[in-house]
Amino acid sequence: MTADFPPAEFEARVANAQKAMHAAGIDALLLTTEAEVRYFTGFRTAFWQSPTRPWFVVLPKDGKPIAIIPEIGSALMRKTWVEDIRTWASPHATDDGLSLLSDALRTARVIGMPMGRESSLRMPLADFDKLRARRSGAMFLDASPLFQRLRMVKSPAEIGRIKEICRITSSAFSQAPSLFHEGQPLTEAFRAFKIALLKAGAENVPYLVGGAGEGGYSDVISPPDDTPLRSGDVLMLDTGASLKGYFADFDRNFSIGQATDVARTAYGTLWQATEAGLQAANPGARAAEVFQAMTTIIGQGASDVGRFGHGLGMQLTEPPSLIGFDETILAPGMVITLEPSLTTSPGKIMVHEENIVITDGGPQLLSERAARELPVL
Amino acid sequence: MTADFPPAEFEARVANAQKAMHAAGIDALLLTTEAEVRYFTGFRTAFWQSPTRPWFVVLPKDGKPIAIIPEIGSALMRKTWVEDIRTWASPHATDDGLSLLSDALRTARVIGMPMGRESSLRMPLADFDKLRARRSGAMFLDASPLFQRLRMVKSPAEIGRIKEICRITSSAFSQAPSLFHEGQPLTEAFRAFKIALLKAGAENVPYLVGGAGEGGYSDVISPPDDTPLRSGDVLMLDTGASLKGYFADFDRNFSIGQATDVARTAYGTLWQATEAGLQAANPGARAAEVFQAMTTIIGQGASDVGRFGHGLGMQLTEPPSLIGFDETILAPGMVITLEPSLTTSPGKIMVHEENIVITDGGPQLLSERAARELPVL
Repeated sequence: MTADFPPAEFEARVANAQKAMHAAGIDALLLTTEAEVRYFTGFRTAFWQSPTRPWFVVLPKDGKPIAIIPEIGSALMRKTWVEDIRTWASPHATDDGLSLLSDALRTARVIGMPMGRESSLRMPLADFDKLRARRSGAMFLDASPLFQRLRMVKSPAEIGRIKEICRITSSAFSQAPSLFHEGQPLTEAFRAFKIALLKAGAENVPYLVGGAGEGGYSDVISPPDDTPLRSGDVLMLDTGASLKGYFADFDRNFSIGQATDVARTAYGTLWQATEAGLQAANPGARAAEVFQAMTTIIGQGASDVGRFGHGLGMQLTEPPSLIGFDETILAPGMVITLEPSLTTSPGKIMVHEENIVITDGGPQLLSERAARELPVL
Repeated sequence: MTADFPPAEFEARVANAQKAMHAAGIDALLLTTEAEVRYFTGFRTAFWQSPTRPWFVVLPKDGKPIAIIPEIGSALMRKTWVEDIRTWASPHATDDGLSLLSDALRTARVIGMPMGRESSLRMPLADFDKLRARRSGAMFLDASPLFQRLRMVKSPAEIGRIKEICRITSSAFSQAPSLFHEGQPLTEAFRAFKIALLKAGAENVPYLVGGAGEGGYSDVISPPDDTPLRSGDVLMLDTGASLKGYFADFDRNFSIGQATDVARTAYGTLWQATEAGLQAANPGARAAEVFQAMTTIIGQGASDVGRFGHGLGMQLTEPPSLIGFDETILAPGMVITLEPSLTTSPGKIMVHEENIVITDGGPQLLSERAARELPVL
C-alpha cells in the first residue's frame, strides 16, 4: 500500500465525490491530470514530468476508481488502494490507451471532467476529440466546480502534511542571516535556500521565485540571475517546497545591510494588510471579503498581481482566489495563502505571504508569522 | 533581454517554424504549454507550477510571436525579444484571455496546434471549445509533427546547455561513495543526491526517481520510501536535473556493500545494450534501428518499460522514442537518451541510461559513460 495515507482517506474522498456525482447526475468522472489522479488513487510520482504518456482515471458513480495507465506505472499503482488497473504498452503506435478508456466509459451517459477555471487537458487533443466522437451518445460536462468544492476542504491528514512542510519552510527561512549576504549573486542565494529547505526536511522544491532590488523587485515570477545582492536591496524569496506531494507556499522579505524608507514602509503596509486578512478569514466569510479587507490597507488598484492569495494543498495554487469576484464561502479545513502585494514605484513591487488553515475558532497560521518590521541581514 | 539565449537563437527558431508553416499552409500557431511558449519567446519561469492562469502565444506565419498573457507575467515577458505583448488582469471573472486570444487569431484561416502524441492542452477545455466556436470559420489542425521536427534538432547553444547539465550530473554521481551507504533510508539517499546536484551547479532537480533492492527494483518511477539500504541491494537513481530550463536525464546503478551475481550479470547486459545503441546511433539511422540494436542484446519482450530511450532537451523526455514503430531518422544536433531496461526476476527490473548528441561523426556522449562493471559502494 502507498504510505501517503491510509485507505480510509481515499474512501472518504471517493464517497464525497460520488455523493456530488449522484446529485449532479454524473455517471463517471474522467481525470487526466496529476493532482486529480493522485487525489482519488494515491498514485504519486515525479514521472508526470515526462509528457510522453497519457494517464487516465475513471471514477464511476459507484465503486472504486479505475486506473487506465501505461504498463510502466502498473507496479506503483498496485501499491495504492486501486484494484481495477488496466494497462497498455505505451508509447503505442496507433492506440495510446484510447480504446481502453473508451471501453471504461461505455455505459456512462453523462461524463464529468474538469473543463473550467484552473483546469487543463493532459492528453492529446486529437485523442480527446476521437473519444468524444466514439462516445457521441454521452454528454461531456464541466465538473470543475464539483472537484474544486471537494478538494478545497482538506482532511486532518492533509492539514497535518501541509503544516509539516510549512514548519520546514519556516525553519529554512529562519536561517536567512547565515544564508544570504551582500555581494552574493541571486542564483547563489536561491541555491543556498533550496539546499537549506532540503536539509530542513523538504522532499522537493518545485517552486522558488523571487527578486532583489532597492525598494522592491520587478516582478514575482522571475528566475534568479547572477546580479550580486547590494546593500539596501530588498531580497524576496517565494517558495513552494513540498513533502509527499503537499505544498507550502509563502515568501519572506529581507533587507541587505540596511533598509530604505520605501522598503520599510511598504513592508509595514503589507504586514498590516496580512493582519487584516487574518482578521477577516473566518468560517462563513467570502473569499472576496478577505480580499476586500486586505485591499482596504493596500489601496485600490495598487497591485497588478490580480489577487491577494489562493488555496493551497496538492498544488502550489488551488481555488479559491482571494479576489473581488470569488464568492467562495470559507469553511473549516480550507487552507489558503494571504498574499497582498503593492507597487512601490513604477516597475517595482513588494509582496508578502502567509499560509493559514480555517478552523471553527478562526484562522490558524501554518507559516511562522513574518517579523513585524522588515528584517535587515 | 533574457539572458538564456541571444535573439538570433529565437529568430532562427521562428524562421524555421514559419518556413514549415508556409509549406503546410498554416496561418498561425497557437501555443498554451510551457515548453512551446518558452521555445519561441524565451519566457522562463517556475510560475507554470500554478495552474490558475492560462498563457498563450500566437505565432503568425510572418513576423514575431505575439504573447497574450496575464498581467503578472508582463514584466518578465518584456525582458524577452517579444514585442507584441497583450495582457489582461487574471484571474478574470468572465473572460480569462479568451477575447484577446480570439482577436489575435481573427485573420487566421488555418490554425495549427500541438494535438498529437506527447501534447496536452494547458487551458480550460470549456474555453477552448468556446474559441473553436468563435473562430468557426477557421480550421484547427494538428501541428505536433511540425513542432517535433523543429525541436528535435538542437542548436549549438542548446547542446552546450545540455552538455553542461550533463557534466554537473556526472560530477554529482561521481560523489556516490560519500553520498550513499548501508542503513541509509532511501529518502535520505535521494535528499543527499539532490543536495549534491545543487552544489555541483544544477539549478533545479525537477525529477529524481529510483529504487533499491536485491537483484533489481520494483519499477523506475517510484518516489523513495524510508526503507534502509541493505548490503547486496542495487541502488538506482535516475535524475532529471536542470540548468536554465534544459535537462540532463540519466541514471546510475550502485551495489551496496557487495554485488549479487544476478545484479552483476544484468548490469553487464544493460551496459552492452547501451554499447550497441552507441554503435547504432549514427546520422541516417532510424530511431527504431537503435531500439532494435539494443533489443538484440536485451532480448525480445524482456522489458515492460515500452521504449529504450527518447529525446531530451527543454523537457525531461521529448520525441523521438527509441521504439519499434518510431521511424524518425537521426540527424546531427539531436540529443537523445539510450535507456535499455531488463526484467531481472518477476516484479524486479534494472535500467541503465546515457545521454548522447548525434553529430556528423557519430554519437557523442554527454553523460560520463557508466563504469563497465556494477560499482560496489
